[in-house]
Amino acid sequence: MLTNAYYNGLFTTRDKIRISLTDRAVFFGDGIYDAVIGRGGKIFMLDEHLERFYSNAKTLDIPIKTTQKELKDILLKLAALSPYECYFVYFQLTRFSSERAHAYPDTDDSNLLVTVTDQEPPSLNKHLRLTVEKDLRHEMCNVKTINLLPSVLASRKASILGFDEVILHRNGVVTECAHSNVHILSGGTVITHPLDNYILPGISRKHMLSVCKKLGIPVVERAFSLYELFKADEIIVTSSSKLALTVRQVDELEFTTSNKSLGSTICKEMLEDFINFTKKDTTNC
Amino acid sequence: MLTNAYYNGLFTTRDKIRISLTDRAVFFGDGIYDAVIGRGGKIFMLDEHLERFYSNAKTLDIPIKTTQKELKDILLKLAALSPYECYFVYFQLTRFSSERAHAYPDTDDSNLLVTVTDQEPPSLNKHLRLTVEKDLRHEMCNVKTINLLPSVLASRKASILGFDEVILHRNGVVTECAHSNVHILSGGTVITHPLDNYILPGISRKHMLSVCKKLGIPVVERAFSLYELFKADEIIVTSSSKLALTVRQVDELEFTTSNKSLGSTICKEMLEDFINFTKKDTTNC
Repeated sequence: MLTNAYYNGLFTTRDKIRISLTDRAVFFGDGIYDAVIGRGGKIFMLDEHLERFYSNAKTLDIPIKTTQKELKDILLKLAALSPYECYFVYFQLTRFSSERAHAYPDTDDSNLLVTVTDQEPPSLNKHLRLTVEKDLRHEMCNVKTINLLPSVLASRKASILGFDEVILHRNGVVTECAHSNVHILSGGTVITHPLDNYILPGISRKHMLSVCKKLGIPVVERAFSLYELFKADEIIVTSSSKLALTVRQVDELEFTTSNKSLGSTICKEMLEDFINFTKKDTTNC
Repeated sequence: MLTNAYYNGLFTTRDKIRISLTDRAVFFGDGIYDAVIGRGGKIFMLDEHLERFYSNAKTLDIPIKTTQKELKDILLKLAALSPYECYFVYFQLTRFSSERAHAYPDTDDSNLLVTVTDQEPPSLNKHLRLTVEKDLRHEMCNVKTINLLPSVLASRKASILGFDEVILHRNGVVTECAHSNVHILSGGTVITHPLDNYILPGISRKHMLSVCKKLGIPVVERAFSLYELFKADEIIVTSSSKLALTVRQVDELEFTTSNKSLGSTICKEMLEDFINFTKKDTTNC
């Protein structure tokens, strides 16, 4: 039997999972999630993702009976059982209640879901094409919730227009992309939006900052404008599924790309960290 | 068999409905809903709710095969079968896709859910106690989506503190409540936030405006501040489930209430419209 999912204590297949109306995801999007990639039985930067997940559960007051250690074991078991060489591990926690009411009742119950799906291995073969949209999201973007509709609509619009991702801005200030963080390189310095309630504290963003430190590349964590983005030397987009990629186009504006640029060097270093972490016992990916 | 729900073509009971992971409500809150009350086989202002629902589906590009007339028949059939004298009719449309990806694929599929639950009949027996919170919601509040997490958290906080509802504000400008519209009465004039992307175009708000017109009460549709709210003569809260109620307290500030006040007159007139609409063939409620 294909085992590519877990739901409330049972290892199962994704297709068999059914959600009841007592799951407040259905009426309110009342839940959190996290997502991470791996290969060969391993999961990259898993502890960081788990810490964020448990921290988000606490922020939203969603109870979780499964301990962080137990969830780690569940995720690693699914990774080991994975039919895919490279995989996308998605885990979600949603609030439980028998009645539909905005104000949820006291409860120690919640639903824990994990799915594992096929994932294209990260590579440096692509330079992204991005478009720009107004950031219409809520002001809790530091929490990885399943209230994702503005990102869904912006992503669909970008996709129809042939773009890979969409840069979001609030009154001309760049926040992040619909499902990635975005950073600029200007005069040899990486500039990235500071950690506040307008961006997700991306694990790959954190990884990028550690790589910059290692390479001696200065980093400034401050808000930057669309104008600064358009004038930047390079743009880097980071996410847990793609790690880090440089950008070749934002709407009509083209950026010069080179495999030897500072941006590409950062991306390459991050990819090597992933490869080094996962290569043991792995023949190819 | 108790029939208090409908799901994708089948009349059923609420407890039996199960949602698959292909329903994008589960991962993204990718859907819309509407809700309305009724009694004695009738549903109040149903056409207005249906028009908003189909308009919202179009705005979010969610396909719906069921026509507005067919959905109306489904809702009225459930109302007729209702085991409850007064009932809350909830209907929801969510996007369908077999894969989890922010940018949804082209599809003509969606999931249509209806539930009918017991509803306390609207009355004027209560004057509300409200608290105030920062409005952290997305900027698509004119669309009735199931991305409701900021409203959920604000409602829970209010509930724990013993308040009935929560007034939301953006930088001191009042928008609406977590699941109601809010209006102030000042010097004999009703002031209400204009219809924009920061508030829901409430059906009961619309009802209130028509009642004000009928009673010769002037209405100004403009944004108002928290300061104006605190200095107001009266506050009215409107929603489809409670129709209209006056307010006796906002945080520590108490408001004088009287059954003969202008606010109470508006609320009374709205309740009478409901009673007159539903009284035919209804013995009591």
